[in-house]
Amino acid sequence: MTHGTSTQVRLARRPQGWPTPEDFSVERVELSEPAPGEVRVANEFVSVDPYMRGRMNDVRSYVPPYALGDVIAGGAIGRVVASASDDLPVGTVVLHQHGWSDVVQADASTFRAVPEVPGLPLSVRLHILGMTGLTAYVGLTAIAHMKPGDTVFVSGAAGAVGTAVGQIAKLLGAGRVIGSAGSAEKVALLTEKYGYDAAFNYKDAPVREQLAAHAPDGVDVFFDNVGGDHLEAALDVMNTGGRLALCGAITGYNTTEKTPGPDNMANMITRGLTATGFTLAAYLHLAPEFTEKMTAWFAEGKIAYDETIVDGIENTVDAFLAMMRGANTGKMLVRTSAR
Amino acid sequence: MTHGTSTQVRLARRPQGWPTPEDFSVERVELSEPAPGEVRVANEFVSVDPYMRGRMNDVRSYVPPYALGDVIAGGAIGRVVASASDDLPVGTVVLHQHGWSDVVQADASTFRAVPEVPGLPLSVRLHILGMTGLTAYVGLTAIAHMKPGDTVFVSGAAGAVGTAVGQIAKLLGAGRVIGSAGSAEKVALLTEKYGYDAAFNYKDAPVREQLAAHAPDGVDVFFDNVGGDHLEAALDVMNTGGRLALCGAITGYNTTEKTPGPDNMANMITRGLTATGFTLAAYLHLAPEFTEKMTAWFAEGKIAYDETIVDGIENTVDAFLAMMRGANTGKMLVRTSAR
Repeated sequence: MTHGTSTQVRLARRPQGWPTPEDFSVERVELSEPAPGEVRVANEFVSVDPYMRGRMNDVRSYVPPYALGDVIAGGAIGRVVASASDDLPVGTVVLHQHGWSDVVQADASTFRAVPEVPGLPLSVRLHILGMTGLTAYVGLTAIAHMKPGDTVFVSGAAGAVGTAVGQIAKLLGAGRVIGSAGSAEKVALLTEKYGYDAAFNYKDAPVREQLAAHAPDGVDVFFDNVGGDHLEAALDVMNTGGRLALCGAITGYNTTEKTPGPDNMANMITRGLTATGFTLAAYLHLAPEFTEKMTAWFAEGKIAYDETIVDGIENTVDAFLAMMRGANTGKMLVRTSAR
Repeated sequence: MTHGTSTQVRLARRPQGWPTPEDFSVERVELSEPAPGEVRVANEFVSVDPYMRGRMNDVRSYVPPYALGDVIAGGAIGRVVASASDDLPVGTVVLHQHGWSDVVQADASTFRAVPEVPGLPLSVRLHILGMTGLTAYVGLTAIAHMKPGDTVFVSGAAGAVGTAVGQIAKLLGAGRVIGSAGSAEKVALLTEKYGYDAAFNYKDAPVREQLAAHAPDGVDVFFDNVGGDHLEAALDVMNTGGRLALCGAITGYNTTEKTPGPDNMANMITRGLTATGFTLAAYLHLAPEFTEKMTAWFAEGKIAYDETIVDGIENTVDAFLAMMRGANTGKMLVRTSAR
């Protein structure tokens, strides 16, 4: 019995500013038997990520925009439940980019088999042991050239990337690691669970003031997930020769108006700073070295993580919007119940 | 007869916004006979440069601020007219950083003897064969990693650095080189004399519109002498993997209010751009390779330059202010008449 159904979330129209549920459609489609070479995968976890907002716009970017009517593509992990491919037998755990559906059927070449790690849920492949962790690792190493002893500031530190950045920075020998987050609870998590030496709530007072108070000896590496006032505050306190890894600018993702940039760009010159924006595509060659290190750190009990899990593929849009508003701690995931 | 006088320009108070003549004092001092180890130098040319404005503020920067009452330090070139040092006999041409005076007397170790280049005036050591040319060379090579075929955009292209950047870029194999300047005359000079493939007057229309029209295939390297709207316009059209060498931000030098930064910093991320601010201090090791190349280019007749010369050390402040307003074409210099 290999017939079945797939519930899929598609882009119905392009959002203006903050997305609304009306910008998406949820459809249930019948699946025929897998054609030769195809497999059917029942997802266990589906990822919702900030970068997806950019792909909903019809503008030039590092990845093409989503087409209207298409399933929202993105990371997901599941098990093969029906197979017409010798490469991926039933039961194989696979990672893929088919995105927001509970069941997906496609050519076996579009899935990648991954080993299960004893004691770890499959979900970590979608964040700290996956692209999220790799993003943190690449930003600190290949982009910001973090050196032992460096003071590191991470904006949006309680997010999926930020919690990984703090831990990896410390494991790589950072001196002081400072994080910002949007609630007292998140701030407490940063210092109590994620190894941050200092953290502050960016809603309590201007970021400029709080960062300056927490970084009396300046900042050598800034890992930016936020942009806007955080970037401006960092430019105030960067030490000579400092490096800025620009990873996200969630501040501007849902504004239709232009937001002004930092008023202190001249510090780039006077302090000899380097700011590098990056997306992972050009750095995937670092995945093996990252996976090896992160798996070892996990085995040594040195890695903590949080997940905020929403159940049901039909709630994916809500999960995405909640993540964009910062309602998650750690990685926001959708758990699907299809089998 | 080794007694004499020196006319010196000193910082009388810290300018607020645009400097005024009242912020400086011009003094004539008597010089005693050079002490053992000292030399007396009659300057032929004294340099006025944008970075000096920053040193007039009492703020942290890459060089310490000028002290109130001190002679304004900066580049100058002259000849030894009295010597109590075997290292620098009378007649030696020397470069130094003693700045705004017609005659300077100090320890021989603070001067550097330079050879005279047949057919070239001493003044070029203060710009295209000196720090100015080196700034252009470092920005294009060590900072922006310009590759043959790259499209290069230079803001403030008719200034001393900008005219050097355009020529060096073409000599190093750049494809299209585009410049902005502040008058029709300067725009004409860029394309007719300095090898720019295209140029526009930034006062004619928004920089964003003009740059986009002149760079239909985008920009790979941006050499920024201006900041502000030029940086914003460049971020609009940078190609994926583009490099920005941030050399000057004259836009903000004389404002006491904060000026907003570019509204499109997110392009840094989506296009994987690297922006590096720089000052020469960390790159002086490239001076020998630069001097060798530039001297050869001069000998081959491949280098053009302009100078705007103001006579008389007592007019140095006027020359500095005129330069800050953009009244010069090419390098602004003060010629001193002391002998």
